[in-house]
Amino acid sequence: MENKKLGRQSFQPASPPIIIGYGSAAGQKESSGPLGRHFDHTCKDDTFGAKSWEQAESSMQQLALDAALKRAQLHTVDLDLMLAGDLLNQCIGSGYAARASGVPFFGLYGACSTMGESLALATLLLSGGYGTYAAAVTSSHFCSAERQYRTPLEYGCQRTPTAQWTATASGAVVLTSQSAKGPAVTRVTVGKVVDKGIKDANNMGAAMAPAAYDTLKAHFEDTGLSPDFYDLIVTGDLGKLGSEIVSDFFSTDGVPLSNYNDCGCLLFDTNQQDVHAGASGCGCSASVLCGHLLPGLLAGRWKRILFCPTGALHSPTSTMQGESVPGICHAIALEGGR
Amino acid sequence: MENKKLGRQSFQPASPPIIIGYGSAAGQKESSGPLGRHFDHTCKDDTFGAKSWEQAESSMQQLALDAALKRAQLHTVDLDLMLAGDLLNQCIGSGYAARASGVPFFGLYGACSTMGESLALATLLLSGGYGTYAAAVTSSHFCSAERQYRTPLEYGCQRTPTAQWTATASGAVVLTSQSAKGPAVTRVTVGKVVDKGIKDANNMGAAMAPAAYDTLKAHFEDTGLSPDFYDLIVTGDLGKLGSEIVSDFFSTDGVPLSNYNDCGCLLFDTNQQDVHAGASGCGCSASVLCGHLLPGLLAGRWKRILFCPTGALHSPTSTMQGESVPGICHAIALEGGR
Repeated sequence: MENKKLGRQSFQPASPPIIIGYGSAAGQKESSGPLGRHFDHTCKDDTFGAKSWEQAESSMQQLALDAALKRAQLHTVDLDLMLAGDLLNQCIGSGYAARASGVPFFGLYGACSTMGESLALATLLLSGGYGTYAAAVTSSHFCSAERQYRTPLEYGCQRTPTAQWTATASGAVVLTSQSAKGPAVTRVTVGKVVDKGIKDANNMGAAMAPAAYDTLKAHFEDTGLSPDFYDLIVTGDLGKLGSEIVSDFFSTDGVPLSNYNDCGCLLFDTNQQDVHAGASGCGCSASVLCGHLLPGLLAGRWKRILFCPTGALHSPTSTMQGESVPGICHAIALEGGR
Repeated sequence: MENKKLGRQSFQPASPPIIIGYGSAAGQKESSGPLGRHFDHTCKDDTFGAKSWEQAESSMQQLALDAALKRAQLHTVDLDLMLAGDLLNQCIGSGYAARASGVPFFGLYGACSTMGESLALATLLLSGGYGTYAAAVTSSHFCSAERQYRTPLEYGCQRTPTAQWTATASGAVVLTSQSAKGPAVTRVTVGKVVDKGIKDANNMGAAMAPAAYDTLKAHFEDTGLSPDFYDLIVTGDLGKLGSEIVSDFFSTDGVPLSNYNDCGCLLFDTNQQDVHAGASGCGCSASVLCGHLLPGLLAGRWKRILFCPTGALHSPTSTMQGESVPGICHAIALEGGR
């Protein structure tokens, strides 16, 4: 059997890479949420021992990767490739985290879809015959994101009801091309840049929802599978509003999703925690994957998950120049593991 | 024959992908330089018809890709994958350029090494059995880079002698996994993040030179080839100072490079044009590749080129926080074409 392309956007490895390690780090608010006890590393003051919020992101990535390598019973030097990205200007969270590793490195920018992008590329590279072990890593930090995308926290700006709370969290996954026990990445749908003209930079859910819908539809068309093939379809960080839009789109199509949730709604208790429309940030889907979804696959809670991180490819500059907010979403099919 | 990993950092496709199209766009200063007449699109006021410098980058990417597709006798819809990145915060040059394309998209951040990173990934994905046509695209713009990394141009800041001039340019390459006539990508060496502690953000050449040396050494060790296997070894954008450092390192090792040059020294006439230590920016190596190196391979001027774009993975924030400037370099072996 050969690696193949399915339809317009999807790829199917002949020998699906196996996830043999995963690790997570999360901040105070995240570890107080419903999934809090599942994270490998938490930190009460969100500094993770670093002097700046930006450096704290690099620390989180290193902690998450260390935990993933430990589960995989590997050392950093065993990795053939590292694929990582984050939200910071020039992706410094990832660049500085990778500096000490000595691992061949591909830096990515997919905004909050980065866990999907890094998993997609790791899957395609390993199954393409290139290397034995690859790591996919990402992070976000509430304090670095707020001052970069919006205003410094000290301003105390009010948040709109549609705003989401950037997760202070990181997730790392180690995959192998060898036969092993663990969840397999069986299919990958690579997203297109989709822009429906949303210009409200405080409503990322609405901006990204059309990209999620586009990629999910492409996945089902390309693979011939129906949504109920998966026990769980989970988008990245659309939050309450964005995930309702995706549900509405599929209902309008006559294919209501009964098995759908969103990482932005899972990470926080939106009724109890002051996070408005839910969680966002690269670290949101990454930490939910590593703290909740992968352990659930290993425990047999689910057998098949379609994991679909979403990203908004804008910047404060593009918003100030009057541009709308384009979105992207990559879909990663995870199967088995028990 | 199978795709394989060579040594620690290098990969060799069993069937090397072929470059069947390339295109370039360049600004006024770049088109006044020694390579000026070789670019597909030039613009006297550097706006490329856009209202902002950032939007001009997206326009340049679209022009370069259109020229590459035209040479490849393809349409956008034929592309299976697009891999693109740039220097702007959140890589908006690439995200907005890709918006209209409808092509499955991987956003990259490798700073000025992005042409190497995108070519490396396109090569590994296509030869891994994933798709028939892929595009690798990148850009930089002097005016958007200056106001983002340093100061708005209107300030009229003085430049240090070690400073380089960010190229206003874009390059796009179209590769295929099918048999075709054109230069082949025969080997790829993926760079590690290398940091020798340089903290002067106005001396990118010195910051990136150790990464270039590291990747070149890895390439020769991994492949067993000696530098004279290549007719030309060309680094990305080290400029006069950085490329002298690389030459010095190899001379100290007792392996003087007789066939070495740097895109940062090729794009401008550093004696005649007011660019201090030479050119930099993602668009530097990308436009030199598409305006000079690939046409040279096709004309038989060279038979084998090792193309090694270099990037500095820092940001103004990391510099202000006292961090040093890490570098990365990816090496791409280009052979034949005539």
